[in-house]
Amino acid sequence: MIIHLKKGITSDQAEKFAEELKATRVQHNGTTILVTTTENGKLNGIGRDLVEKVYEFDSDIQLASADYMVSKREVAIGSQKVGGNLNNTLVIAGPCAVESAELVEKSAKFLKDLGVNALRAGSYKPRTSPYTFQGLGKKGLEILDSVRSRYGLSIVTEVKDSSHVGEVIEFADVIQVGAKAMFDYAILEACGKSNKPVMIKRGFGATAQELVQAAEFVLSGGNENVIICERGIRTFENSTRFTLDLSGAIYLKHKTNLPIFLDPSHGIGHAYGVPDLARSCMAIGVEGLLIETHPDPSNALSDSSQQLHHEDFKVLFTSLKKIGDAIGYQVV
Amino acid sequence: MIIHLKKGITSDQAEKFAEELKATRVQHNGTTILVTTTENGKLNGIGRDLVEKVYEFDSDIQLASADYMVSKREVAIGSQKVGGNLNNTLVIAGPCAVESAELVEKSAKFLKDLGVNALRAGSYKPRTSPYTFQGLGKKGLEILDSVRSRYGLSIVTEVKDSSHVGEVIEFADVIQVGAKAMFDYAILEACGKSNKPVMIKRGFGATAQELVQAAEFVLSGGNENVIICERGIRTFENSTRFTLDLSGAIYLKHKTNLPIFLDPSHGIGHAYGVPDLARSCMAIGVEGLLIETHPDPSNALSDSSQQLHHEDFKVLFTSLKKIGDAIGYQVV
Amino acid sequence: MIIHLKKGITSDQAEKFAEELKATRVQHNGTTILVTTTENGKLNGIGRDLVEKVYEFDSDIQLASADYMVSKREVAIGSQKVGGNLNNTLVIAGPCAVESAELVEKSAKFLKDLGVNALRAGSYKPRTSPYTFQGLGKKGLEILDSVRSRYGLSIVTEVKDSSHVGEVIEFADVIQVGAKAMFDYAILEACGKSNKPVMIKRGFGATAQELVQAAEFVLSGGNENVIICERGIRTFENSTRFTLDLSGAIYLKHKTNLPIFLDPSHGIGHAYGVPDLARSCMAIGVEGLLIETHPDPSNALSDSSQQLHHEDFKVLFTSLKKIGDAIGYQVV
Amino acid sequence: MIIHLKKGITSDQAEKFAEELKATRVQHNGTTILVTTTENGKLNGIGRDLVEKVYEFDSDIQLASADYMVSKREVAIGSQKVGGNLNNTLVIAGPCAVESAELVEKSAKFLKDLGVNALRAGSYKPRTSPYTFQGLGKKGLEILDSVRSRYGLSIVTEVKDSSHVGEVIEFADVIQVGAKAMFDYAILEACGKSNKPVMIKRGFGATAQELVQAAEFVLSGGNENVIICERGIRTFENSTRFTLDLSGAIYLKHKTNLPIFLDPSHGIGHAYGVPDLARSCMAIGVEGLLIETHPDPSNALSDSSQQLHHEDFKVLFTSLKKIGDAIGYQVV
Repeated sequence: MIIHLKKGITSDQAEKFAEELKATRVQHNGTTILVTTTENGKLNGIGRDLVEKVYEFDSDIQLASADYMVSKREVAIGSQKVGGNLNNTLVIAGPCAVESAELVEKSAKFLKDLGVNALRAGSYKPRTSPYTFQGLGKKGLEILDSVRSRYGLSIVTEVKDSSHVGEVIEFADVIQVGAKAMFDYAILEACGKSNKPVMIKRGFGATAQELVQAAEFVLSGGNENVIICERGIRTFENSTRFTLDLSGAIYLKHKTNLPIFLDPSHGIGHAYGVPDLARSCMAIGVEGLLIETHPDPSNALSDSSQQLHHEDFKVLFTSLKKIGDAIGYQVV
Repeated sequence: MIIHLKKGITSDQAEKFAEELKATRVQHNGTTILVTTTENGKLNGIGRDLVEKVYEFDSDIQLASADYMVSKREVAIGSQKVGGNLNNTLVIAGPCAVESAELVEKSAKFLKDLGVNALRAGSYKPRTSPYTFQGLGKKGLEILDSVRSRYGLSIVTEVKDSSHVGEVIEFADVIQVGAKAMFDYAILEACGKSNKPVMIKRGFGATAQELVQAAEFVLSGGNENVIICERGIRTFENSTRFTLDLSGAIYLKHKTNLPIFLDPSHGIGHAYGVPDLARSCMAIGVEGLLIETHPDPSNALSDSSQQLHHEDFKVLFTSLKKIGDAIGYQVV
Repeated sequence: MIIHLKKGITSDQAEKFAEELKATRVQHNGTTILVTTTENGKLNGIGRDLVEKVYEFDSDIQLASADYMVSKREVAIGSQKVGGNLNNTLVIAGPCAVESAELVEKSAKFLKDLGVNALRAGSYKPRTSPYTFQGLGKKGLEILDSVRSRYGLSIVTEVKDSSHVGEVIEFADVIQVGAKAMFDYAILEACGKSNKPVMIKRGFGATAQELVQAAEFVLSGGNENVIICERGIRTFENSTRFTLDLSGAIYLKHKTNLPIFLDPSHGIGHAYGVPDLARSCMAIGVEGLLIETHPDPSNALSDSSQQLHHEDFKVLFTSLKKIGDAIGYQVV
Repeated sequence: MIIHLKKGITSDQAEKFAEELKATRVQHNGTTILVTTTENGKLNGIGRDLVEKVYEFDSDIQLASADYMVSKREVAIGSQKVGGNLNNTLVIAGPCAVESAELVEKSAKFLKDLGVNALRAGSYKPRTSPYTFQGLGKKGLEILDSVRSRYGLSIVTEVKDSSHVGEVIEFADVIQVGAKAMFDYAILEACGKSNKPVMIKRGFGATAQELVQAAEFVLSGGNENVIICERGIRTFENSTRFTLDLSGAIYLKHKTNLPIFLDPSHGIGHAYGVPDLARSCMAIGVEGLLIETHPDPSNALSDSSQQLHHEDFKVLFTSLKKIGDAIGYQVV
């Protein structure tokens, strides 16, 4: 249950009422909001004088629900805006990892020349094996910072565990909570206290509902700038690296108020299929696409099989804009 | 291993050679072809005088492999053609089931007026429970036959088990092997002896590779007109009815020579999401789309939640053509 | 809804009443039973004079439900009985396929000497690829028939499609509906008209509920001797061939009245793990185990990696009996 | 590749050699060990004088591999030992969460009287929704500490994110890395620096291989006391909460040197099925079982549907010992 309190209620009054209801207290957009679990539902006249409006739900998806807020939340990323009624699709591209300053420089120049406005690259890599490349860490964030200021690109970069969440929150334009970190409550809590855009990637073993519940952690922490990203789930099919769940993404588009990003690169895991899958994602009408591209994929330090050559990305980018025209979305 | 025999080889010679190799003998396009398992591979000079060309593979996907035949197989459905280098997408629409002559009549008129050329409707319904509507059977086929001749629509209809496979082969323009029948070898064998187009739907628990192997049964039976259809697999996600595996479909598009159909209606199972998912399918560039539409979905005898209203289908059909224009495919 | 009619009701009266209710009419154990879908529920006084007892359900699991019949159904297989309150576990062993008369002879002798009473071997093999060994067909059934009479073993053998269902029904002591044929309604219908024990294997993509619904097809066809078998489902885990769903098997044990068989051989797919998994199955307390064993697994024509050496089976068989003692079940 | 260096090699020599090989340096059991990825394999005579023994592998499972160490690692938990050649099964029981001092006291007394030696209860609960009970945190650890000293029970308790990993490492006898935290590298790194037993639960979306790779993070960090726990994976089957992957657990038992724990409570999620599933787990022969039991499950603050009544646990515990006798394992 979500309860909007009347304007002018003091912090003390709100706190007392929240305690009585065992509610989570949130400040959003100047409004004091209390949220309780769906179960402990009824007000029964309690706090009648304080309550402006009450919303009831039948699941733990509340602040993120399309029943609470009909239109999409609007989120600003650098000088671009997505969500709301804008019908904008932000294309975010770049290499899997910050391998070196040279790679990031080359990537930034290529993307900027092409008209792409956001660069993705990971500096803290959540690798499955302890014996492989783990990323450049803080040094990588500094490399990203440098191209941001010189090229005017927004930086989307990943936090893999809570030990460095503060650094990523400070540096990034979009804090990417990686798929393996989706259930990391220390990260979600820290993101809730920031007001920077947070993009939560769906865990490959997580349901669509759980992804939204992770978003609820950030929203109920006070941060309204939450984006969710589908990047492929694990299924019995293993001819591809993951199965991009576009059925689920469409469910999320219709049932939540959160901007949706899609990641076709991880969603198939093989460069030959990325252009077709990216076009497929674009045609749905979503707020963003994440696409891995590298000047020399075969020598990449991670995800070498799924990163597109710059030349192939160029062709893809043009076709994405055409599909955007066909469905009334603008690539930004 | 696929072996093309020289022109002029007699049937007796071919048979003898096939026996020696433990090979399956196939006649395709005037060419005599022998296919062996990938394991019993080497010719070692045997039959040197008979052999025109040899193709080697590392899996049991052989006649359907893109390594065997670079361009897509071309299949004629009524007066339309798909596959080859045509970049045509056949839209096949209609109700889930042949509920009555009236429903089929209304559907056929609606679709023809709109410019749709193929009608889908099931007369033998593979229902999970014995206590629900099982379809009209042969009577339904006769209803379909009637609108075909009067409206010039191609009929796509399903065979659910081998007891009525002969009837469906006789009546249908495209024999639909249902998802639950994908492993029914009696059906596949009967289809192999026909030369009508056969569309095999992927079982919701079957891998992409197994779908192609089902196609190999039909191809090696002698029928070259085989289409495969992705319609959703079963995953842990249950906010949608199935998870449409577009990653897998793109794998199949690139690695096989078979025309690909996609079924967004079963792939999400809820009408609210079908238009987005159908556009997503269209943007990939495939040979066909199967979309359920019904004049009164809430009173449908089966799949009532996933069938689009005719009015919604109309809007969708227009947008599919626009996406086709954007990617260089023509809706036929 | 299940309705038991009073004794003495004529066939005509029952038929008329069934039509009125759109019910399926079944004769079980001398009782005339009508079954309707769970939805079209209420009697509202109709047929008051004919009705003995009414059972209501909230799913399409009705005749198979533990709410309809508290204790397990009892099924006789050769001279053994399972189910009811017997706490018997029938061990069924043998090679994957009827490769030759010699193999079956050797297997039968080995098993009989050990005290095993049922032999399994497939003569119609549902192979994924058209280019591999497809089984000996009817000739294989004759081989099985021969060892049955000479060794007094019950024969469990598979039907893969409806083209040969009559032959298998005639020959087998237990008709095995294979995992890939679970949705084959022509087979289920034919089995419903027989009164031989039918063991339905769960499809690797089928839910536990769907398995029980397949059983409902046979039960509502008139055959009460239905057994269900869990043999592994398809999941994202691929270090094993399948994932044996023992959680699901226990659900089925508690929620249905059907005897349960388990197949640890397909459930892991590697001989090294079969003994541990078979013991794990035994400890649950179920009506049967299916275990593949072969005198020379490395030269088997199918499933060579998962068949146990006879010597290893011997050791396993002893330990199964010990576990039976620990939980109060007897190996028969 | 694992390289054991000769005794007497100085730390400087080892470090230099490790750098040259891009190897991870580990000190285990007095031995200096270098581990490289499987790819950068060959020594080619480098460091010939320093190397005692070389082990080669074809995957990133190295320190945990049964090919590296044939017998299970032995781990001491309080006064019990598991692993090695001991054939001991440690039963760990208790409520889902530390709800109150009273609950823990009651549980501890019940378990100790019964002969159980280890108590499980979570104080940091990784809850999916932000609006439900999140655990007592540090206060809960103090409650657990109190019963440990008074009852002589080992305490198994969970770390949910790295913000409190230090506290759990200090308090627990076995540090439980929860299923949702399996990919949390900050936790794994901290555990690697401790020498307390660490039990890593398999993520419900993680492969068996990834579970072992998480163990490699801890092993290569220097901690040899690593246990892995299967607790159910997510599949399409939803009649049960999860699907306990015993096929996968048996794979892990045979292919790794890590002690295996199994958790039947989460593995089915319904109390009615826990006894059958627990017996099934016991019959495999593993190092530990985790079973949730609560004096009043219907009023539990979390997991109320899956916790066994104390009385039911008592009956189960007796039968587990009988199965242990049947297979040659001792419940400790």
